[in-house]
Amino acid sequence: MTIDRLAEEISRKNAPVVVGLDPNLTLIPEFIKRKAYAEFGESLEGAAEAVWQFNKAIVDATADLIPAVKPQIAMYEQFGIPGLEVFKRTTQYCQEKGLLVIGDVKRGDIGSTSAAYAAAHLGQVKIGSKTFAPFDEDFATVNPYLGSDGVKPFTDVCQACGKGIFVLVKTSNPSSGEFQDREVDGRPLYELVGQKVDEWGAGLIGKCGYSAVGAVVGATYPEMGRVLRKVMPKAFILVPGYGAQGGKAEDLKVFFNPDGLGAIINSSRGIIAAWKKEPYAHFGEEGFADASRQAVKDMIADINSHR
Amino acid sequence: MTIDRLAEEISRKNAPVVVGLDPNLTLIPEFIKRKAYAEFGESLEGAAEAVWQFNKAIVDATADLIPAVKPQIAMYEQFGIPGLEVFKRTTQYCQEKGLLVIGDVKRGDIGSTSAAYAAAHLGQVKIGSKTFAPFDEDFATVNPYLGSDGVKPFTDVCQACGKGIFVLVKTSNPSSGEFQDREVDGRPLYELVGQKVDEWGAGLIGKCGYSAVGAVVGATYPEMGRVLRKVMPKAFILVPGYGAQGGKAEDLKVFFNPDGLGAIINSSRGIIAAWKKEPYAHFGEEGFADASRQAVKDMIADINSHR
Repeated sequence: MTIDRLAEEISRKNAPVVVGLDPNLTLIPEFIKRKAYAEFGESLEGAAEAVWQFNKAIVDATADLIPAVKPQIAMYEQFGIPGLEVFKRTTQYCQEKGLLVIGDVKRGDIGSTSAAYAAAHLGQVKIGSKTFAPFDEDFATVNPYLGSDGVKPFTDVCQACGKGIFVLVKTSNPSSGEFQDREVDGRPLYELVGQKVDEWGAGLIGKCGYSAVGAVVGATYPEMGRVLRKVMPKAFILVPGYGAQGGKAEDLKVFFNPDGLGAIINSSRGIIAAWKKEPYAHFGEEGFADASRQAVKDMIADINSHR
Repeated sequence: MTIDRLAEEISRKNAPVVVGLDPNLTLIPEFIKRKAYAEFGESLEGAAEAVWQFNKAIVDATADLIPAVKPQIAMYEQFGIPGLEVFKRTTQYCQEKGLLVIGDVKRGDIGSTSAAYAAAHLGQVKIGSKTFAPFDEDFATVNPYLGSDGVKPFTDVCQACGKGIFVLVKTSNPSSGEFQDREVDGRPLYELVGQKVDEWGAGLIGKCGYSAVGAVVGATYPEMGRVLRKVMPKAFILVPGYGAQGGKAEDLKVFFNPDGLGAIINSSRGIIAAWKKEPYAHFGEEGFADASRQAVKDMIADINSHR
């Protein structure tokens, strides 16, 4: 099960950290874009090539330090088919480097439609007498708004293929409370979703003691994280919002279980765009990948000092 | 605005009906798959070619009768990159035939990520000095679980590009009530989401009197549809669940405003797989597109007799 590999790799590298590969063009150094546009034109293909070269350099510079990456598919989808080709190429490349890939796809639909998404991202499709794994991520993020019958096709594929999901429970954005925090039977909706995460994962516990059904809970809401940690003791928590969105390391302790496991903290812009920010500006534009490596080391140290 | 075109085309064709292009391989006649596999192999490319030929025949047979189609992107995503190429090709082909395209993508994320999805599906991306519209649907469906700041990037693009969205409010599946029906301040969550739909669309009212921000409400829940119709008087309601999922025409009246407008009813399997079902079986496998045409005519008559 990929959840066992994730737990192992976090322990082995002593790094409960995932790098978000969310390459907006504004985060990519000019010299990379120039070269890509020279070869492929100012086109979707040119943008996708720039994303690919950028990703590859960052992955090469950080793969030995981290257990996983989290490509945000929206950043690839915005470049159409060529962008999605690079999403797939990035996924494969990271897996070849021994990294686990959390596809941040936030899919979710009903019945046969969720089954199609689950096949696309985690499972296989049967075509005639053959089977194919179209995107083949190790984990995918899932939106729970449609309820259990929208999530079950994903857990079915987790069962069949040993993969995992992270269900959105409490997201890191400012207006996440608009619906997620509303009180239902005396407690907030996100707690109810958290309880369902616990239920959905009950039959999918790995050797590591954690379930294939994890949860997304934003670093920006540590008090809620503290409660949710207890509501879903077997769920790995994927925590976005550290760094650029304002989440601080001292707030992250609550997302871990007493054994120091059970959470993985994401940083996207804080790592991949480190070269644009003060403490790493001396690496220069050409040194963007080295800047990312240093930012990953600093992030790991920061988080480990508080768990 | 695409919402004005949608209202016009519904009136002109007297058909508040959208055909869901959700081509699972099991719904596609054997002779189409055989030909596609002979040419492209039992491969993602072969499956995508079968989907394309199937879609094209159904669109050719029904385009004069209907205002819009709703391709469900999951059914294309399950065939990887070749599948997504056919999603795009289908979108373009339908638009060339004068149809509006509702991309059933159920995307939704936070801030810059939602902006990337909105650019991908409805808007444009800037690459160097050029702009591109990657998928360029006329409408997209949006998941509201992340709240207003996840939806705003979509409404910004609606404003800028004249496009529209349909926000999931009350979905048609059996377990949709698990979260959507939970009582919040004395009324169900879906009503709160419905009220937000009304607010999000307030600045985006078209000449037709309807807003660019519509809602998805399942045909399987007519009593809730009756309430939601009043909560969101300016929202066009996209109604899935007619036919295969059990929604009946007599239950659909509540989704329309007193003027007989403001709703569009989707059927997917009931139309595209009509050839497999009793009343249309006499068309035979080779006559699948003619079966779809007859099923569309019957659906329009059925719905118009009750609105």
